[in-house]
Amino acid sequence: MTSFVVIGHQAKTDGSFSLSDLAGGAGRLDLLCRSVQASLFLSHGVRQDGVCLLILAGGPGPAKTVRFSGDTIRSLSPDERSSASFIRKALEVPAGSLFREVTPGVSVRKGGLETILQELQCGVLDEGGTDVRKEPGDLPEAFILSDHHNFTHDEEDLIRDLPRYSLGPEVLHADHAIVLLLNEIDRRRSGWN
Amino acid sequence: MTSFVVIGHQAKTDGSFSLSDLAGGAGRLDLLCRSVQASLFLSHGVRQDGVCLLILAGGPGPAKTVRFSGDTIRSLSPDERSSASFIRKALEVPAGSLFREVTPGVSVRKGGLETILQELQCGVLDEGGTDVRKEPGDLPEAFILSDHHNFTHDEEDLIRDLPRYSLGPEVLHADHAIVLLLNEIDRRRSGWN
Repeated sequence: MTSFVVIGHQAKTDGSFSLSDLAGGAGRLDLLCRSVQASLFLSHGVRQDGVCLLILAGGPGPAKTVRFSGDTIRSLSPDERSSASFIRKALEVPAGSLFREVTPGVSVRKGGLETILQELQCGVLDEGGTDVRKEPGDLPEAFILSDHHNFTHDEEDLIRDLPRYSLGPEVLHADHAIVLLLNEIDRRRSGWN
Repeated sequence: MTSFVVIGHQAKTDGSFSLSDLAGGAGRLDLLCRSVQASLFLSHGVRQDGVCLLILAGGPGPAKTVRFSGDTIRSLSPDERSSASFIRKALEVPAGSLFREVTPGVSVRKGGLETILQELQCGVLDEGGTDVRKEPGDLPEAFILSDHHNFTHDEEDLIRDLPRYSLGPEVLHADHAIVLLLNEIDRRRSGWN
């Protein structure tokens, strides 16, 4: 099981956005949707052990987390609009402190990064971190990524002591980072390295 | 300069599709749009040397090729809808046998794979190919990828003698393959390997 946690600093917590304006009014939800796609999709199937946790922190109100689980997801297509419609559905139901399944494989709860860090052994990406290809030990079970904004000071405080990994000489979008991490994990599992 | 050539077997050659139905009526144009995004975007910028060539082969009529060039592109956003609106614009003008620029960095012409193979030194992805991480020589200047369909028999005939590369144990979407190839190229250029 590998989880990817993506913080959407501007992503709306209510379901009032238009599916035709994901990059604008929905607060760069397009990037979060592509992160779902990168976390869960193979060419002709779904990664059964893939999990994508989207932290929507753009208000109104406190953050919510929407979880996509590869083992139970149904009817999700790889296009941004498909993930976005599932997210919108999840945001339209009342959220409590525990995950509530809205549709198979898609759940929502209140809260954000702090709760996730108590539950999962996480790593973060950092240009100065260990090259993921050269990490001799196991990789963490979850990775924290940010949208087009840097981590906030509060987030940096929370993740300060986590192991840090780098992926290459260029700074990439979150969804591209997920693709690279999954390839490294796939290779390690199958003895390709 | 690295070019990624993605064949959209069902992608429409006219601009009559809806931007809200990219995965359906537009013939899985969502996948081609994500391939543009993977070819051209860094976290906070555009790959100046990135080129994405989309072969739209889903009719009506013969195939067209739409080219996105990182060095001259303007106003392109990473979301699928943004690339799709540029593609639609390109399909609305008459196409000839030479590339015609429709908007900065976006050009269109008639024709498909056969012409491209005469112009660029290409490689293809194949599960049985050389692991791209272990290829001791230079990588080709262009890669041919397919959408969710396999190459047709005619296409297989055209690419039969090209060098073949594999990326890992899983079969991936074209846009994910592009991310992995660019990471390998970035690493080689910067001495990360």
